[in-house]
Amino acid sequence: MLPPLRIGLAGLGTVGASVIALLDRQAAALTARIGREVRVVAVSARDPGKERGVDLQRFAWVADPVALAKSSDIDLFVELIGGEEGVALAAAEAALRAGKSVVTANKALLARHGMRLSRLAEEHFVALAFEASVAGGIPIVKTLREGLAGNSIERVYGILNGTCNYILSRMELEGLSFARCLSEAQGLGYAEADPTFDIGGFDTAHKLAILTSLAFGTVIDADSIAIEGIQSISLADLEAAAELGYRVKLLGVARRTADGIEQRVHPTMVPKSSSIAQVMGVTNAVTIDADAVHELTLVGPGAGGEATASAIVADIADIARGVRTPPFGLPAASLAAMPHAPMQLHRGGYYIRLSVHDRPGAAAAIATRMAERDISLESIVQRRRPGAHEGPAGAVPVILITYATHEKTIREALQAAVADGFLAERPQVIRIERE
Amino acid sequence: MLPPLRIGLAGLGTVGASVIALLDRQAAALTARIGREVRVVAVSARDPGKERGVDLQRFAWVADPVALAKSSDIDLFVELIGGEEGVALAAAEAALRAGKSVVTANKALLARHGMRLSRLAEEHFVALAFEASVAGGIPIVKTLREGLAGNSIERVYGILNGTCNYILSRMELEGLSFARCLSEAQGLGYAEADPTFDIGGFDTAHKLAILTSLAFGTVIDADSIAIEGIQSISLADLEAAAELGYRVKLLGVARRTADGIEQRVHPTMVPKSSSIAQVMGVTNAVTIDADAVHELTLVGPGAGGEATASAIVADIADIARGVRTPPFGLPAASLAAMPHAPMQLHRGGYYIRLSVHDRPGAAAAIATRMAERDISLESIVQRRRPGAHEGPAGAVPVILITYATHEKTIREALQAAVADGFLAERPQVIRIERE
Repeated sequence: MLPPLRIGLAGLGTVGASVIALLDRQAAALTARIGREVRVVAVSARDPGKERGVDLQRFAWVADPVALAKSSDIDLFVELIGGEEGVALAAAEAALRAGKSVVTANKALLARHGMRLSRLAEEHFVALAFEASVAGGIPIVKTLREGLAGNSIERVYGILNGTCNYILSRMELEGLSFARCLSEAQGLGYAEADPTFDIGGFDTAHKLAILTSLAFGTVIDADSIAIEGIQSISLADLEAAAELGYRVKLLGVARRTADGIEQRVHPTMVPKSSSIAQVMGVTNAVTIDADAVHELTLVGPGAGGEATASAIVADIADIARGVRTPPFGLPAASLAAMPHAPMQLHRGGYYIRLSVHDRPGAAAAIATRMAERDISLESIVQRRRPGAHEGPAGAVPVILITYATHEKTIREALQAAVADGFLAERPQVIRIERE
Repeated sequence: MLPPLRIGLAGLGTVGASVIALLDRQAAALTARIGREVRVVAVSARDPGKERGVDLQRFAWVADPVALAKSSDIDLFVELIGGEEGVALAAAEAALRAGKSVVTANKALLARHGMRLSRLAEEHFVALAFEASVAGGIPIVKTLREGLAGNSIERVYGILNGTCNYILSRMELEGLSFARCLSEAQGLGYAEADPTFDIGGFDTAHKLAILTSLAFGTVIDADSIAIEGIQSISLADLEAAAELGYRVKLLGVARRTADGIEQRVHPTMVPKSSSIAQVMGVTNAVTIDADAVHELTLVGPGAGGEATASAIVADIADIARGVRTPPFGLPAASLAAMPHAPMQLHRGGYYIRLSVHDRPGAAAAIATRMAERDISLESIVQRRRPGAHEGPAGAVPVILITYATHEKTIREALQAAVADGFLAERPQVIRIERE
């Protein structure tokens, strides 16, 4: 039998404590599966005295995570410090340079420095594993990198942020406002005091950047992702969506197009009958469209200590068994530059909710602005009186669903409609994603 | 770079031809991913002259699959011959004994001889891979064996036979009879001329036997699976299910219980809101309940040449990279004997549809038979007049949903009710599976 794999773990928050608890609980089973023992030998965290629900006395405490990362007492470094720069980056780099494999759940770190870390891992013949960084307990990294190795992937999209999905689900199911649901999510610990990172779509974008690289064999390019959050979504939108057979989800979408690869994060109308539309609450889901497997969907917990620990321990097991798949599926030098498709060239259907001044000719003028640009309308819903949640008094809500057209064309048409002076509010635009 | 991995492929039906086409299409990408070329060098099939849509001239033809399996010209043998004995078994054994890794989609072979083949693979330090044998393109084998390596699994269940799910979906959505939908499925090529293997639940049982071993670290024991097919499911059941908030699916279920491991295949009522209930048509789905990840569901194509080829090529890629995970997650000698939980001890809710002679006291007598055995009823639906699809004239349909009770208890209660002489037909019993 091989000697034990010695682990140094830095960052003892909920996830770190869960990893230690899970390794304890599964010790015998893991040794049998892997053919060697997996043993935490040293840890690092800011406050050694804090109660974390697991026995930490048996481990060496190393105050400096970077010193732990390169310690000759460990074979593998688990980075759970967080943050895209600073100590997390320094420790991960130090570990790889010292010939230690690294397991991390740090999506921000990977979205920013994944390529550099991947090259370092390769140069030093060690592993860099990050299953836990995207969609928590869902084995999406392994699925893209290994399970679909024979596929050419066309699109990968998913619900990658539980906080946003919780808020949108509550709004829809209970008819509550965005503000109310956000404050509930904060009360339940699903959302931070400053929720911008989640609800603004930035967390989803980090995860999408990683999925895009795995799916398309391209370098990570988080900066070219078009990002919109869910702040602007109102009950009026959810009600209109329901009426038209859709649900609104915050999706991260990466798609191969004739113009390059689209990467975008935005509230999205999905058909109610789609797998992704069924996913409610904090659950995550990822769907992959590929040439051979056609459509594959994975649904599971996107966060939480135990689910994240599940992914981390799976990575540890692979590394302990000696598996050294390139972190992003291809050697770093073989990853292609990102052929970035600009958002203006995006093609798809659109939901547009307008608040129109109740004057003769208003609807006709808007329809004309669409027709001038060859935008075909799948449906127009105009109500006599606005519903409870629908816009300012004296204005009439008009909802348009378009057939596939270009982002640029829609924006131009709406700009012209605004200039015509018939709109009482800024138009709401939500892109439609079909299966 | 490593030398090419040389493949011998036996069996050139739809799946075999799809594997060759996929390896051709993905040749460059696979070489980049794996770091070496993957190359089919020889094939074997009954009819060399048959048109299969791929160029086979470039391969050596070996008439005898066993000779191909042990040929010194190959490193890996792909077995797509089919059948649980005979040539498929002989060829797989010959390949392993000759030190060749084996990739197979043959669930019957594995359900019957998986342990023996697994031991052989280990003895000869080669791989035995079978992602394609369960749920087609869904990477469920990899997920159980590697992705959830840190979990203790409580239950694995799924829709593993597309033919049955197609028939049940059509019956429900179109209100058509079982016989009509079966004949449609045969017309579309989803069902064989003799459909027993699919609709009788035997195909699902083979796949379940493999999943059980992977999930619980036990030896394969296909013979202890309790099997019921979908032949007895009527429109009356589907309508009653819909009314009560359920759908009927043919599930394979393996569950850890206090009495051992339950393995069962039967038509099952699942809550309409569950992930598994959303899966319609020929699509497959597998849900795993485990201690760390809680609940994970994978949804995708369960059959078809391309989806199956996707799984086979992923296995080939792993083997080409040198990955040698034990076939069933643990070394064969470490797999536990199956602690078989007999079906009589099964505990769960039940749907019972009775055709009751319309006589005073009939319903009371049946309720008494239940009460005598402490069976609590969640709901009783008794209609004045039978619906269009509900049983013989003069009889009244009564539908009972029980709270959790034992299989033995339900069977005894129903036997007593039959003996009372109030039932016009054999009772229909469908087990309920909750998330």
